[in-house]
Amino acid sequence: MPDFSIGVDLGGTNLRIAAVSTDGQLLEKITLGVKVALGRDHVIGEMCDAIHRLTEQYRGSGRFVGAGIGVPGIIDRETGMMCKSANLPGWSDYPVRDEIERRLGVRVFLDNDAKVAALGEKWLGAGRGVDNMAMLTLGTGIGGAIVLNDKIFYGMTGMAGEFGHVTVEPDGVPCGCGNHGCAERYASATAVVRMAHEAIATGNAPGLAKAAKSDPEFSARSIYNLAIQGDPDARRIFHRFGQVLGILLAGLINVLNLDMFVIGGGVASAWDAFAPQMFAELRDRSLVYAASAPEDAVGKKEGASALIGYTRKKTIITRALLGSDAGLYGAARIPAS
Amino acid sequence: MPDFSIGVDLGGTNLRIAAVSTDGQLLEKITLGVKVALGRDHVIGEMCDAIHRLTEQYRGSGRFVGAGIGVPGIIDRETGMMCKSANLPGWSDYPVRDEIERRLGVRVFLDNDAKVAALGEKWLGAGRGVDNMAMLTLGTGIGGAIVLNDKIFYGMTGMAGEFGHVTVEPDGVPCGCGNHGCAERYASATAVVRMAHEAIATGNAPGLAKAAKSDPEFSARSIYNLAIQGDPDARRIFHRFGQVLGILLAGLINVLNLDMFVIGGGVASAWDAFAPQMFAELRDRSLVYAASAPEDAVGKKEGASALIGYTRKKTIITRALLGSDAGLYGAARIPAS
Repeated sequence: MPDFSIGVDLGGTNLRIAAVSTDGQLLEKITLGVKVALGRDHVIGEMCDAIHRLTEQYRGSGRFVGAGIGVPGIIDRETGMMCKSANLPGWSDYPVRDEIERRLGVRVFLDNDAKVAALGEKWLGAGRGVDNMAMLTLGTGIGGAIVLNDKIFYGMTGMAGEFGHVTVEPDGVPCGCGNHGCAERYASATAVVRMAHEAIATGNAPGLAKAAKSDPEFSARSIYNLAIQGDPDARRIFHRFGQVLGILLAGLINVLNLDMFVIGGGVASAWDAFAPQMFAELRDRSLVYAASAPEDAVGKKEGASALIGYTRKKTIITRALLGSDAGLYGAARIPAS
Repeated sequence: MPDFSIGVDLGGTNLRIAAVSTDGQLLEKITLGVKVALGRDHVIGEMCDAIHRLTEQYRGSGRFVGAGIGVPGIIDRETGMMCKSANLPGWSDYPVRDEIERRLGVRVFLDNDAKVAALGEKWLGAGRGVDNMAMLTLGTGIGGAIVLNDKIFYGMTGMAGEFGHVTVEPDGVPCGCGNHGCAERYASATAVVRMAHEAIATGNAPGLAKAAKSDPEFSARSIYNLAIQGDPDARRIFHRFGQVLGILLAGLINVLNLDMFVIGGGVASAWDAFAPQMFAELRDRSLVYAASAPEDAVGKKEGASALIGYTRKKTIITRALLGSDAGLYGAARIPAS
């Protein structure tokens, strides 16, 4: 029987715990609502109970190699503390990892949710079989991670992959990070809603205005639905989204020349609304992409092909495959890799 | 006696060949003028003669581990061919590596000059003792390389490090690569001269206009000299230079979170003219830099520090130390590492 590990995906809404064999088979998954209001200790208690239950259950079938926990926030990998989490108030500066290790007596790895999602996609999803990849998680902001040879590339202080705060418009929209024109101000769920409200404020976006009035949850999804139905203002928002994502990706490809870029997160489901413009920008703006893109794309790009020649390897830009399970599998992968 | 390798720096002007011990001591350096006009075969002949002379000379003192050659152009590392070189006409699509291996009967590694310069700075220059770094070579364009744990990070097709073609102004100056607003259109020797001519064309840059008339070689260096003497238009050019370099570096820091970024190349000597604005942009635009910058810089950056907390590790942005020898040492490092 194969060895197994535990993966935990701690979100703002759900807490999911899975036992996964080291060869990538799901043994069992437990989903619990996160009762954030009951406080940190309650959530950690439920998490530990579930981990304990699963390890007891499968201990007979193979060696238990440890638990990985993906959390929505910035963590300090050295100390195993959460530095900051918007979705989990009260968890900051708390020794999450050590507390769980103490309670369970097992080895625990704590990591950021975007990072473990990338590891999951690399292991069992879109990036399977690829050497090096990055993942962009399009949600409230843009989460990111670089995976080189099956390992997350952390950089000096664990912050490599802050793709969302790359400048795409030097004089653009202010960002909470202190910069102007960060990519995530244009290519995230938050950005889609902001751009819609800006369009409504001009008085020239009747479709968006009507939807905002009638839909109490007027969200990126509502705006996507309008775009798909042909509303020109909603379409323009996703055009801008794709443009900025393309500029960001073009830069990442020029800098990193990775085999694959995986686009995940909730807003990735608006792919057909933003992808055409994203690919157009990539062809125009990345000589590395153009040199390693399908022939039809390279044909449009004489500058780059003349400059660097063709190669047979293609840069792949693709959607994530595992959805919300990516983080669960990726978290389970950390102790197993 | 220590083992040794040969490093070759093939430029458009000089051909330099050095014997370097594997512990980083220069044994001997030969500098030859590159008689480009006499053709590729002549240059390769001179290079092989010099390599042969040095290996014979030092063979008694240690084992010869191979030769590395840095060339100014895009190379295909798999085939050892030069794909394209602006400074060495007639060398494209020629099996440089195989030809030299055939003539000398030794193992030869061919690499791009910006990549070997980075390896040299990592080994014996600014990056000594640092885990991960990148180098930006500011010259005609911007050359770049990422060095992770003493190895150049090549990416899928050897093109990782194309920092010069990262978009900093989506609607900016057109670039030969097909993009608009590439970093090297603003932060290179070529860009400095272009911006000077644009300023002169407005009729409102008398200092630059006078210099351009009287100086037949009106170059980035001439414009730097004017800036240092206080000419406001020349200063404005280097302000813009620093701004764009800062935007580029802020993005690279957010993406890669490397320990160090080394700035080399001829235009790096204009450091005092562009660096103040470069650092200002870094503090404003990179939450990762702000979180790992000296206290005085972090103090100005409440957004980022509140978002991610402080860390004691600093991102270091510094000038290259080895000048034109970086490539020579780096080339010698390839077979030795």
